[in-house]
Amino acid sequence: MSYDLVIRGGRIVTSTDEMQADLAVRDGRIADIGDDIAAGEVEVDASGKLLMPGGIDPHCHIEQMSGMGLMNADTFETATRSAAMGGTTSVISFAAQHRGQPLRAVVDDYLSRARRGAMVDYALHLMLTDPSVPGFADDLAALVAEGHRSIKIFTTYNIALGDFDILQIMELARACGALVCVHAENDGLIRWTKRALLDAGLTRPEHHALSHPRLAEIDAVSRICRFAEYLDQPVMLFHISTREAALEVRAARTRGVPVWAETCPHYLLMTAEILQRDGLDGAKWMCSPPQRNADDQRALWRALDRGDLQLVSSDHAPYRFDETGKLSAGPDARFDQIANGLPGLQTRLPLLFDAMVSRGGLGARKFVELTATAPAQVYGLPRKGHLAPGMDADIVLWDPDRKLTYGEDDLHDNAGYNPWAGHTVTGWPQAVWLRGELLVDGEDFRGSPGQGQWIDRPDLATRPLGVPAPEAAAVYESRSC
Amino acid sequence: MSYDLVIRGGRIVTSTDEMQADLAVRDGRIADIGDDIAAGEVEVDASGKLLMPGGIDPHCHIEQMSGMGLMNADTFETATRSAAMGGTTSVISFAAQHRGQPLRAVVDDYLSRARRGAMVDYALHLMLTDPSVPGFADDLAALVAEGHRSIKIFTTYNIALGDFDILQIMELARACGALVCVHAENDGLIRWTKRALLDAGLTRPEHHALSHPRLAEIDAVSRICRFAEYLDQPVMLFHISTREAALEVRAARTRGVPVWAETCPHYLLMTAEILQRDGLDGAKWMCSPPQRNADDQRALWRALDRGDLQLVSSDHAPYRFDETGKLSAGPDARFDQIANGLPGLQTRLPLLFDAMVSRGGLGARKFVELTATAPAQVYGLPRKGHLAPGMDADIVLWDPDRKLTYGEDDLHDNAGYNPWAGHTVTGWPQAVWLRGELLVDGEDFRGSPGQGQWIDRPDLATRPLGVPAPEAAAVYESRSC
Amino acid sequence: MSYDLVIRGGRIVTSTDEMQADLAVRDGRIADIGDDIAAGEVEVDASGKLLMPGGIDPHCHIEQMSGMGLMNADTFETATRSAAMGGTTSVISFAAQHRGQPLRAVVDDYLSRARRGAMVDYALHLMLTDPSVPGFADDLAALVAEGHRSIKIFTTYNIALGDFDILQIMELARACGALVCVHAENDGLIRWTKRALLDAGLTRPEHHALSHPRLAEIDAVSRICRFAEYLDQPVMLFHISTREAALEVRAARTRGVPVWAETCPHYLLMTAEILQRDGLDGAKWMCSPPQRNADDQRALWRALDRGDLQLVSSDHAPYRFDETGKLSAGPDARFDQIANGLPGLQTRLPLLFDAMVSRGGLGARKFVELTATAPAQVYGLPRKGHLAPGMDADIVLWDPDRKLTYGEDDLHDNAGYNPWAGHTVTGWPQAVWLRGELLVDGEDFRGSPGQGQWIDRPDLATRPLGVPAPEAAAVYESRSC
Amino acid sequence: MSYDLVIRGGRIVTSTDEMQADLAVRDGRIADIGDDIAAGEVEVDASGKLLMPGGIDPHCHIEQMSGMGLMNADTFETATRSAAMGGTTSVISFAAQHRGQPLRAVVDDYLSRARRGAMVDYALHLMLTDPSVPGFADDLAALVAEGHRSIKIFTTYNIALGDFDILQIMELARACGALVCVHAENDGLIRWTKRALLDAGLTRPEHHALSHPRLAEIDAVSRICRFAEYLDQPVMLFHISTREAALEVRAARTRGVPVWAETCPHYLLMTAEILQRDGLDGAKWMCSPPQRNADDQRALWRALDRGDLQLVSSDHAPYRFDETGKLSAGPDARFDQIANGLPGLQTRLPLLFDAMVSRGGLGARKFVELTATAPAQVYGLPRKGHLAPGMDADIVLWDPDRKLTYGEDDLHDNAGYNPWAGHTVTGWPQAVWLRGELLVDGEDFRGSPGQGQWIDRPDLATRPLGVPAPEAAAVYESRSC
Repeated sequence: MSYDLVIRGGRIVTSTDEMQADLAVRDGRIADIGDDIAAGEVEVDASGKLLMPGGIDPHCHIEQMSGMGLMNADTFETATRSAAMGGTTSVISFAAQHRGQPLRAVVDDYLSRARRGAMVDYALHLMLTDPSVPGFADDLAALVAEGHRSIKIFTTYNIALGDFDILQIMELARACGALVCVHAENDGLIRWTKRALLDAGLTRPEHHALSHPRLAEIDAVSRICRFAEYLDQPVMLFHISTREAALEVRAARTRGVPVWAETCPHYLLMTAEILQRDGLDGAKWMCSPPQRNADDQRALWRALDRGDLQLVSSDHAPYRFDETGKLSAGPDARFDQIANGLPGLQTRLPLLFDAMVSRGGLGARKFVELTATAPAQVYGLPRKGHLAPGMDADIVLWDPDRKLTYGEDDLHDNAGYNPWAGHTVTGWPQAVWLRGELLVDGEDFRGSPGQGQWIDRPDLATRPLGVPAPEAAAVYESRSC
Repeated sequence: MSYDLVIRGGRIVTSTDEMQADLAVRDGRIADIGDDIAAGEVEVDASGKLLMPGGIDPHCHIEQMSGMGLMNADTFETATRSAAMGGTTSVISFAAQHRGQPLRAVVDDYLSRARRGAMVDYALHLMLTDPSVPGFADDLAALVAEGHRSIKIFTTYNIALGDFDILQIMELARACGALVCVHAENDGLIRWTKRALLDAGLTRPEHHALSHPRLAEIDAVSRICRFAEYLDQPVMLFHISTREAALEVRAARTRGVPVWAETCPHYLLMTAEILQRDGLDGAKWMCSPPQRNADDQRALWRALDRGDLQLVSSDHAPYRFDETGKLSAGPDARFDQIANGLPGLQTRLPLLFDAMVSRGGLGARKFVELTATAPAQVYGLPRKGHLAPGMDADIVLWDPDRKLTYGEDDLHDNAGYNPWAGHTVTGWPQAVWLRGELLVDGEDFRGSPGQGQWIDRPDLATRPLGVPAPEAAAVYESRSC
Repeated sequence: MSYDLVIRGGRIVTSTDEMQADLAVRDGRIADIGDDIAAGEVEVDASGKLLMPGGIDPHCHIEQMSGMGLMNADTFETATRSAAMGGTTSVISFAAQHRGQPLRAVVDDYLSRARRGAMVDYALHLMLTDPSVPGFADDLAALVAEGHRSIKIFTTYNIALGDFDILQIMELARACGALVCVHAENDGLIRWTKRALLDAGLTRPEHHALSHPRLAEIDAVSRICRFAEYLDQPVMLFHISTREAALEVRAARTRGVPVWAETCPHYLLMTAEILQRDGLDGAKWMCSPPQRNADDQRALWRALDRGDLQLVSSDHAPYRFDETGKLSAGPDARFDQIANGLPGLQTRLPLLFDAMVSRGGLGARKFVELTATAPAQVYGLPRKGHLAPGMDADIVLWDPDRKLTYGEDDLHDNAGYNPWAGHTVTGWPQAVWLRGELLVDGEDFRGSPGQGQWIDRPDLATRPLGVPAPEAAAVYESRSC
Repeated sequence: MSYDLVIRGGRIVTSTDEMQADLAVRDGRIADIGDDIAAGEVEVDASGKLLMPGGIDPHCHIEQMSGMGLMNADTFETATRSAAMGGTTSVISFAAQHRGQPLRAVVDDYLSRARRGAMVDYALHLMLTDPSVPGFADDLAALVAEGHRSIKIFTTYNIALGDFDILQIMELARACGALVCVHAENDGLIRWTKRALLDAGLTRPEHHALSHPRLAEIDAVSRICRFAEYLDQPVMLFHISTREAALEVRAARTRGVPVWAETCPHYLLMTAEILQRDGLDGAKWMCSPPQRNADDQRALWRALDRGDLQLVSSDHAPYRFDETGKLSAGPDARFDQIANGLPGLQTRLPLLFDAMVSRGGLGARKFVELTATAPAQVYGLPRKGHLAPGMDADIVLWDPDRKLTYGEDDLHDNAGYNPWAGHTVTGWPQAVWLRGELLVDGEDFRGSPGQGQWIDRPDLATRPLGVPAPEAAAVYESRSC
């Protein structure tokens, strides 16, 4: 009995292991890894190349409105094409509730859009902004039970939830078994600082960085960790940007609090200085939280190395650099009138491969862990993120020697610019398979809309990746009566 | 040239020293301390007694409405009579703004009430609840310049200010040189927990303690310390009740943040168990934050000893235990319908004297420091809190041997009950002088309304009592551009 | 082309993954893992069983003299038979220098003993006690270069090295690329306490626990971590027994110090109470450091979970419970006259399997990590500790359902007693292969002396298992001139 | 009845207070402080001047041999003359045991020398180097009972004690109520680093600083604090020089350990750069531990401010800068051949007055606390260190306006050079009284040998200056059986 696909002679890399072996695929799954594998209908020579699991990007915004009410530039089609071309075969984007919208309708809408457009596999975070809509708690419980196992909330922007509502949602999540993801920055501190800056006439893109003080992140991360401890509810802290916030997460984990955290390439590899470009050019890189400094970069790498932070997402949030996007307030826009976010789905993996594998950072296994294995475990994607018999055949063939400098407009998303233009990377995703089907072949994209499938998440892994033992967590201090 | 008053043969205790010496008073001030002092018009024999500075109570509510809109039970006359009978010769109470009220009018009102009624010296904290009234910033600056050097704000209750307003007021305070005092508890966490308790039918006085989780205090204290660090603005944290909050204050001081903190006798000497009395009886002891446990008591004593907390106030907040006060919602009241607060002006000093001096705790000098010297320094009362030539002759003659058990109704305030009934103390304020005039003589009160004077506070002591060096503080991180 | 051995239908467990698959072996190595593997000369049915990598025990004493000069009870033959019967296929024991002995001779002696007797694969730690022998530094460098990549030193016992010698050896190790393993307890504190106990007539086995105060471990671990930081030299802390010492290791790793640490089953699963048995019976469990308390047990599990400690060894140190061993000083021996150590090679894996897999602790993957994968990575055993094509076919077939209660004399080592007698475990190593050869088959041992091979360790993995980034380490502070 | 001496019109400064008042002396003690004091036989006008308590220098080496066997340059006569000229009226120096010497003989010898020569009051620390002499424990207990309440030991130099002996002495001290003072640096680490430096040909005075790594201090301070905790024995850590060691002390005090610590002017006001002078000139400033860097300076000031460190001594250790002293090994001496120590008795107070009072540092009250009040309290000098009726009339009249630049040879000790030459100070001790007798009058010294008296120390203040509550300390963990 033969195989559908056999990839021979590559170096297979998992989060803990590297081996020289052949890999066979049958019916969309990995069937065999070994020395003398039988013939496949398709045979691929991977000599001198690395085989790694397809990337999982658990934090990207697709067909979603910004906090300022601006639609972002991507459709599921453009976003997932871009993902695939960068070696990512699964994404988790958002089903974003607007105030007044019933949750069920929101999810149905996003699922139908994704079903039509997605070219890689996908799941959805439930982005909750209005717990006062009728049927909210019941809808939430039902949707989680159907496999939407993660929730997203904000502590800032005009969609911020107050502490009361945050606790309320964490309690509901606890009852139905969902992970709560949080954008954690102190809203009052940001608004106050923003006001002070504008009063002082400090209105340029670079002042955006000042308007989100590091204290805002530190304070909110600290508080959310405490809420997680109070309710013993698993929480994922999104896009950690500062050294101190990373240490808050570490301290919480030391106490046994079930918290996880991520960071993004633009915090690991950029600093706030990039916002100082001439004119409004710095706006291309504006995002929230903003890029920080070189000390923070070192601290974030250290935190990833030690496992204080567990994964790296893109926080892909694409807006065109024109009047339909970042520049909608015109050429004299103040920083508070410019949409926050930058495209990243396609560049996340090459940037990290270059930093971690080619330039001798944390290494190839850790690269696989941060970009594929850990996202699969934390978010509960049962057959993703690992190369082993039985897993989905989501595979990337990396050419470790190919060197390339990003250009101004070489991404396949719809943002229209590449924030990493001029940045050179070594290492390239030469071929990409999604469940055994060839999606990317060198420069050619072979996918088609609707090819991606929704990923059922029947259960949250209860104790993925080093989560502290549950007996350590303080539970419901004041309700134990 | 003779003296108005000479007290001979007593043991004079200051915050750092004890000596056997005579003490002479002229024109309301201490004129001499020594061995063979010339005759006084009045001569007092203090053999076997201790002479200590009159107490300063920097946190008491007089003629003020509760967060729930209930007027408290005391007038300036009853409150200050009670203070004097307990050895306290200076109080700082509140000029409490209600929403919509201009500050100037609030202060004028409280000053005229105090002028008529006060029988000990007094100053006012500006209690700010509505920064949106016209002229707010200008009024505030002018009032501080006139000598009202301290501000009070809340993070909880219906008079809570949000983080934006807190930062705004801290910035105004910084510009005009005022200390900001904060009742710091996380409001959302308290409301959520309260709702959860009531939903569960847990409505008794003892559930009040559960409704203010320790995390609420820890989180808010941590945040306020960070705000103080962000703006380099001196802050006093009121009524610390938990071990962890005391450690947050300590940690902030270690970083060089200009923060101070106090606790109260009911946190040092009571635990939450007292709320479990039969019926609504526990309501007598309900206050916010609530009493905690024995571990917290030990930690608070340790924090006072180490200087992490600097002083002990009463947080006197008197409500009668009847339908005009605590029981206004009737005999079936839920805990959230009962006014928070207990009387303490008269008992603060005897309780602490007993615990610290008679029972061999931190000692007589530390007693003087916590109850008189430190309040004078932190709040900027230039001639108070110390026994030395030139200081106001506010003197208490303590009988260290007199032993007494508090009864149900033996206080001179207007609350009508004594929360310490049954508690025995050793050590009693036998005689009290205010600026050289005899105010208390054994059981007899000799003061008269209006005898107390307003205490001008021309300047905040810039570095009182171990405040970290200013160069250490991080200032205006994000506005340094 | 067929396989030597195919094991079908088992559940393969690695440190990060579990899969249902067949596994094929050729020429002593794993050749294939997959669904439909070709026939093997030998076919094994593993349905309902778990396949895991053979255990690696990196800390066991074989044919070695105790600190008190007593030869331990095992030969390589008895020790490795015992190891194999418990699922362990690789051991690292000690080439123990006595004062005055040249290193080369010591290693030659141990290698020849092991070559004759060992029935599982083995490596040697160089146990250094006398750096003053001629040729010491050169011998050390040569031996490390030949593949003996680890050194063992003591801070206590009569073979203790002082701080000067410790630093000297760490510098030599740094120059030639060896890991330094340390038994870290403060010698003076132990001797002083021991003296105080004996003076007080406290001489029983249970007083042994008191004679090794937890402070002794905490202090020495803290100091060794600082030395590792000073010289940027990788260090392994042996047999951590206290919560605080585990936190010292964690703190050092937070600072970027290249330190690792282990603990042992008798710290995870026993407390000091076991030393209180009647008569001298407690002596059976005496070891150094001693067992601690239930808080420490919880803390050690947490530290393993978080990765602060990376592996679990046996510290196998067998002495017979008779006049040739523990009781050599007779039936009235004082605790300081009794040899320290207990047998553990055979029981380590079943005890941990029971605690971690059967009873729902940290899980099967973590069990594999702690007992096989991590030891291989930390100590640089290139083809051990993992099930993947290319690795040595060291395989254990676990029956997860077999339940067994240990008896008094059911171990295959030569200690003559089982310290876990009466302890029931669920899960049993039913079959064990060493490089594809069947070593254990149910109750039958099939190995033969000399079957074990020496494991060359050409290189220390430079950054195994989450070691902090090197740029973070402070190097040679005072020699940077 | 008149007074012996009245000083009028000065500003009296104590550790907590400043007041404009007259001060009267009778029979060597302060008799009165007040406004209109009766006439004295001697009248002094102190208008525009500050009156402060005479300084107490609790750490100075007089007529003592160095660790290298070199006698230091001062006699009691020269040392105490120098002290007085700098405003210091009490010293605590050492009765230094050499190996083999019985303690009683050592103390008798030093007492008779001091009796003959001392011109200020004095006490002795018992410097213990050999606990093996016959009668050691009994002699120690008797001497402490006679009022020698403090012990000094070393962890480094050729007079170092090992951990066993340190614990032994701490236990003896505990039994008889003595404070144990420790020079705490890790000896092995210093010796190893010294050897490494010399091997590398790094032999200049500036390399001395490298030879005492900061880790050596941190490690030893940490360990001594742990020993103090283990035995609940009060300990004073001498001459803290690094930020991290100060934090170790702070951490221990946080845990409730009875430890105190000091630093010295040359750590607060010098850095290691001063050792880089041409030729051997840097040797003038060589001391142990060495000066550190600007960060440490800031940290030490902060630690004094917060009370983590409680006092500032001189560590006066005078050696002439010639062949009889620092240069005894000739003009090509290596750093390890040069005696460590610098003179400081005379300069301590003017340097600190300038830094703390004139240049606006921690202020005049804190100056008094660190240099007089705290030493008296920590070391148990009952009538010293404070200006109040009943205290010894040890008084310094400071001219706050006098400005002076130190010259090369303007000190009154016998070292022959001034390490602060070229340093300008504002503020000068214009007149000094010892128990009411004028000792210094401007430039004139009026004392005479033998004028100084021995200070009986009947008791250690049990809880001086913020010592943590005793119930908090862990006592005798392993002996509690």
